[in-house]
Order: sequence, then C-alpha cells, then structure tokens
Amino acid sequence: MRCPSDPLRIGIAGLGTVGTGTVRLLQTHDELIRSRCGRHIRIAAVSARDRRKGRGVDVSAARWYDDAVAMAGDPELDAVVELVGGADGVALALVRAAIGEGRHVVTANKAMMAERGCELARAAEQAGVTLAYEASVAGGIPVIKLIREGLAANGVSRVYGILNGTSNYILSVMRESGREFDDVLAEAQALGYAESDPSFDVDGVDAAHKLAILTSLAFGCEVDFGAVHIEGIRHVSAMDIRYAGELGYKIKLLGVARRTDEGVEQRVHPCMVPAESPIGSVEGVYNGVVAEGDFAGSLMAEGRGAGAGPTASAVVADLIDIARGNRPPTFAVAASALAPSRPLPMDSHRGPYYIRLTVVDLPGVIADVTAIFRDFEISIESIVQRGRAPGETVSVVMIVHETAEAAMTSALARIAKLDSVTERPQMIRIEDF
Amino acid sequence: MRCPSDPLRIGIAGLGTVGTGTVRLLQTHDELIRSRCGRHIRIAAVSARDRRKGRGVDVSAARWYDDAVAMAGDPELDAVVELVGGADGVALALVRAAIGEGRHVVTANKAMMAERGCELARAAEQAGVTLAYEASVAGGIPVIKLIREGLAANGVSRVYGILNGTSNYILSVMRESGREFDDVLAEAQALGYAESDPSFDVDGVDAAHKLAILTSLAFGCEVDFGAVHIEGIRHVSAMDIRYAGELGYKIKLLGVARRTDEGVEQRVHPCMVPAESPIGSVEGVYNGVVAEGDFAGSLMAEGRGAGAGPTASAVVADLIDIARGNRPPTFAVAASALAPSRPLPMDSHRGPYYIRLTVVDLPGVIADVTAIFRDFEISIESIVQRGRAPGETVSVVMIVHETAEAAMTSALARIAKLDSVTERPQMIRIEDF
Repeated sequence: MRCPSDPLRIGIAGLGTVGTGTVRLLQTHDELIRSRCGRHIRIAAVSARDRRKGRGVDVSAARWYDDAVAMAGDPELDAVVELVGGADGVALALVRAAIGEGRHVVTANKAMMAERGCELARAAEQAGVTLAYEASVAGGIPVIKLIREGLAANGVSRVYGILNGTSNYILSVMRESGREFDDVLAEAQALGYAESDPSFDVDGVDAAHKLAILTSLAFGCEVDFGAVHIEGIRHVSAMDIRYAGELGYKIKLLGVARRTDEGVEQRVHPCMVPAESPIGSVEGVYNGVVAEGDFAGSLMAEGRGAGAGPTASAVVADLIDIARGNRPPTFAVAASALAPSRPLPMDSHRGPYYIRLTVVDLPGVIADVTAIFRDFEISIESIVQRGRAPGETVSVVMIVHETAEAAMTSALARIAKLDSVTERPQMIRIEDF
Repeated sequence: MRCPSDPLRIGIAGLGTVGTGTVRLLQTHDELIRSRCGRHIRIAAVSARDRRKGRGVDVSAARWYDDAVAMAGDPELDAVVELVGGADGVALALVRAAIGEGRHVVTANKAMMAERGCELARAAEQAGVTLAYEASVAGGIPVIKLIREGLAANGVSRVYGILNGTSNYILSVMRESGREFDDVLAEAQALGYAESDPSFDVDGVDAAHKLAILTSLAFGCEVDFGAVHIEGIRHVSAMDIRYAGELGYKIKLLGVARRTDEGVEQRVHPCMVPAESPIGSVEGVYNGVVAEGDFAGSLMAEGRGAGAGPTASAVVADLIDIARGNRPPTFAVAASALAPSRPLPMDSHRGPYYIRLTVVDLPGVIADVTAIFRDFEISIESIVQRGRAPGETVSVVMIVHETAEAAMTSALARIAKLDSVTERPQMIRIEDF
C-alpha cells in the first residue's frame, strides 16, 4: 500500500528528442514538481533501442529495458510514458500491456490516439487507470485540458485550428517572401523545420490525426480518423497567397470539425481566413486552436506545437495531473458513453470559395465560365481578371458566395474541360471566422 | 456517507447577471454535465437580496436564504458559489463560513482573491476543501487552469495580458475611429460596455486585481495586490495611438508580472506592443493572457473576459472539477508553501519608452531636451517633430532605448520645467514581446 506522498514512479519508453526532453525536464524541475503535486516524480525505468547511445541526460539510476513492452510489467511502476511513436507496433503493444497491468499511461502518440483512441480509452476505463495524451495535440499548448476541463460546462459546436507547425511555417514564409512551395520546403528541410520526407506534415495527415482527437473530445463521439477529409498544401501557389492578401485573407492549413444536427464534419485543407482574425494571426511554427462553447464563446490558445521542450511540458503536465489525483475521463465523457461517429461527407460541406482559373485571354471565356456557375446555381460575389494579354494566358480570380461542395466540384469539372481553360482550376475554401 | 455518483449539491449566493447565468447554464446542460462528471450538479440553495425580483430563471426548487452567510451552514451543501462580489463584507464572511463548515467554495470575486487570497487559501487547505476562482480572471478563458495545471511542469518567469475588456474595447475603438477617450467612453457607457462609474475598469484597478492573482499562481508567491503599480488609460490620446500605429505598435492596457532574481515586478499601465504580436492582435472586449514557461515557451489564451455566459462557464468548470474530484492546490503549490512576496519598486523597471512632448516650435528646444537625456544617460533611438509651426506648439515624439524608470521619471520632471514645454510630457512604456 502506497502513501499519497510517495513518489510517482514512472517508466519512459523512447529516448528520442521528446524522451530526453522529458527526462531533462523532470531532472531540472524535480523540486518545483514536488512543490506542485506534493510528491516527487521519479524515473524508475527507461527503455530505448540502443543503450549505449549518448543522449546528454543521465538515466543510469533507472532500470533499463531493451524491450519496452516488458517494462509494462515492472511491478514498481505507477505510470508508463509512451514516446515510441507509430499507430501500431511496439507503442500499441506497450500501452495495451501497461493498461492491462493497471498502470497509468501518458502518451504523445497522435497516430495511435487517432486510430486506436476509443479502444484504449475503454480499456483504461475498465482498468481504472488514466490514459493521458496532452502532448499528442499542439505540443506545449494544453488544448486537451482546455477543452476537456476548461470548457467542460459548454456544448461545443465547432473546433478548428492550425495543428501543424511545419505547414504553417512554410505558408508564413511563402507569404512574407513571395516564394513558391518547393523552394520554401527545401529551405525548411535544410533548417531542420521539415522532415526529409515531409508528406505527413505538408499533406495534412499529421493535422488530421490531431483533429480526429479534438473532434472526439469536443463532441463526445468516437474517434473517427478515417472520416477526416484531407488535403495538403502542395498545390497552394505564391500567386494564391498574394491574391488572398489583397482580399484581406491569409491561407492557412486548417483542421475544422463541426457538429450539426445531421452529423460531424471533419476536414483538413488549405483555407482562406480573415487576416485580422485570431487564427489568422498565428504565424510561423506556432499552432493555434479555437474552440467555440455555447456559454464561453470563442476561445483560442496559441503556442509552440512541437519540439522537445513544449512536448515534454505537456507530457509532464499529464504526469503531474496523475500525481495530484486528477482523473478526468479520457475524452471528457466516459469511454462507454461516447456517441457513435456520424460522419458527414465532404460533398455536403457548404461555404464560400476562392477559385482561380488560368485561361486564354479571349472574348467569351468569362461568359462560358459564368454560364456553368449559373447552371449549378452558384452565386458569384466577384470576378477579377488579373492582367491583360490578348491571346495569352491570364488568371481569373473569383469569389463565390456560400455554396455546396458538390455543386462546386461538378462546376469546376465542367470548367476544366473548356478549351480556353489551360490548367486545372484552383479551389480554396474560405472561412469567415 | 455519500456515494461518488451522488449529485454535487451546491448553494449559489448572488443572483445578478453571473448568478442567473450560472443557474441557466446548470439547467441547460444538466445532462451534459452529468455525462462529463458522472454525477449531477444540483442547485440545493440560493441566496440573494430580493426574493421577489424576476430573474428569468426558476430557482423555486432551491431553499431560499435571505442571509447568504446563513446558507454556508446548510448541512446538505457540498459546495458554495460566491457571486456576491466585493473584497469584504458578505462575500468574505460567506466564504470564511463555508470553508469553516468544510464546504468547497467557487468564487468569481477577483477583489476578494486579490486582497484575501492567501488567507482563504490557507483556510481552505486546513479544512481540506477546494477554493476555486477560475471566473475571477479573464471570464470564460480558463487561464487559472492553464497556468496551474497546463504549465505545471514549467518555471514561469513572466505572465502578462489584456485583463480588462472595457479598456481594451475603448482603446480598440479609439484606434479604429481616431476619436478621443472621453468620447469613446461615453459611447461605451451608452452601449452598456462600460459602467456609469468606469474607474475600476479604465483606471486599472480591475486589471490589477486579476494580475495579482496570476502573479501568485505563476510564481508560487503570496498574493500582493498592494505591490501592483497601477496606471489607467485616461491620459492616452488619439494622437498617441496614431503615432504608435506609425511605429508598428498598438497601445494596450497591460498587466505584466515578471520574476527576476531580485524579486517580482507587477504593473498595470498603457503599453505599446508590436501590432503583429499575439497580444497586439487581441481586440475589442476580448481578453488575452500570455504565460511564458521555460519548457513550453510562450503560450497565449484569448477569449471573452466578461459577461454572463463566459463567467458562468468558468464557475461551472470549477464545479465540474470539484464533482470529478480534481483538487489542485489553490495557487498551484500548497498555501503553506507560498513564498513571501518580494515586490520590486516601479523605479527599478527597465525598458524602452515612447515620449511625446508638446513644445513651442523654436530653435534650441530639441537641444535642451536631448541635453537632459544625456545628463541622465538616456539613449535616444529616434526623435521626430510632428509638423512645423514656427512660434506655435508642435509635438515631438521620441523613442528611447532601454533605460531605468527612475532615470526616465527624473528626466521628464526636468523637461516639464523647460519654458518651451507647454504640457505635461506624455510617457508610454514599450514592450517588444
């Protein structure tokens, strides 16, 4: 039988950037943490692939496990910190084993929480342990806590945010410098801001993992990563960013989840947002999340969404919650009470759109295009031809009023077939937050 | 003996805007709240001055107390919600009595928490009950939770924010319209955004109450409202706001708390902040709070800082925490472990300054002013005379590099005595966040 002031004994699996950052934080703030939760948090065990690798932190006092899953069986541990990564494999086996052994789990693993979150939450609830995952979304921003506890008294109808720092950095630099995507991506890779394989970040998958978690938390429904509509930022051009600026917008890679009477819409895509809006002012590697409560109103949190320090801050905040005895439900309601997912197809989305066409500058082109829009009952707010070059190609930029995605998709397919349209039409959704 | 799934039985004292908002929220979301904390929150008792007053909510099922303090003795209550207001009087007596009776307390009372926070936290700790006050700072933004729990793993060195929506609204409208303070204040009063006696808001006292609470929470030291340097916004002119804009700044009423090796600086005053900074983009009645953690980095939360809905959201979030069994220390560390306040005098502040002088446009004036700055070893970044009107008065705007407040105050006192200086010099501190 342990006394409430005994140390919380933890095992950390994975000693990469976040793992060593977590060790460093726990060692730096040992006394501060004790003063805040009335007990020490002690690293009793660690596991990583290579025991001899130099990591700049001293973990020699902790028991070493070559096999992370075996660490789950260490009878001294109160909690296991999973920083291995990946939706399946060792990470999943470790978390399942730890829960099965009755240990609390803290994880930074967004892929696992997005794809296995419900299953794990149910197992944790049955075992009477905490499954905490603050670090899995928006790094150092305590957005899980903000929604799960800060907005606990609210019905939430929409949550959205800039959930990927790499993409936001690239879009911010593109806007400031006028440079194109490929060029800025290459520079970001050289600076270490983007991975050598950047697709998780720039193609929207990382943001979609995080959005799926936020959706479940905000709306009390099952995590449904498969239902997220995902588009990345590769097709955003410097020209679109410039035109957006002239219209008072910035282009951001947004994750948006919205609950209606019909179901839940989840989408990740480049989006024009008012430049002056709170979310529009989140720049560079920063993340920002907005949640709309029916009593609290619109709430935004902004901060560092990645990196060793911010992620370790979130991991240890979860451990302090466990040490203090704060045990809220994983997804804000009992896992057994999560509502089934009711995904809305992207076709049913409605909103205004920005359309950019590359056309041969000849009489009649605009008439052809607007006739197609008329056929689909799409109402045009503005049409501007950028430049004048008879017989050459020019850009035509249109803003259309709120319309259905299905109508827009069909209209653009027809427009793309016009002889005078020389490139695939560009379409970017607008959100007037 | 109560079962953990029994309702949490509460008594609400004060049925003004926030009190009726809280009743409305609890009645609207009764089932949602039960799903989130596994038990109902039931209003078992209420107290207000006039039982017959129409309030648009039905509290007939609750026991009525004419005397709020007597309600603290109601043996059925688990928690008391204090929404009476005022640092002393009934509010304080009620909270003391409730704690003494072993009941949890939730309060929205910033004046009481700023002036009696330590005493009440110690009493609550001794009695083994929670003293929760999320609603006392920044309304619907869960900034108490964010610092106390979200940043629990961090050493925090600075916390600052826009803590008064009325002042921020006035400054925002002044900037957008170019109108003067008195004019915008009168309009805000007519619209109900400012009180008929606006001094608590526009003279900085309200923001100072909130800052004192945040300081204690962020730094683990005793609440010391008396140590806050307070200036309001009455002396900010449309001209200063315009010049600030030309320099890339906005003027905001900020509360800033900073911890150094020497002690803690707490100040509320108008401040120039970069227009593009996160805090600079908080407009209108919105509040924004930034906390800087040594691992998490800079974190901002923005939202509605006042009003029935947002404040009720914070009150009920505290009740849900209590119902869920989340019992963090009042000021993030045990009340008995709060460090003594070590206030730094405003004179020891260092930073850049904006200075605007009204002078007679005669040769030699600038030489006189710069000679005084030289005598105090104040380094000038720029001097610009606005307009040209020989023999008439003109404005001279100066930006000085980081300097000590004491030197600046002395220099301005000397400058004010120059014959050619016709008005009290304007001085606004700059923060390059």
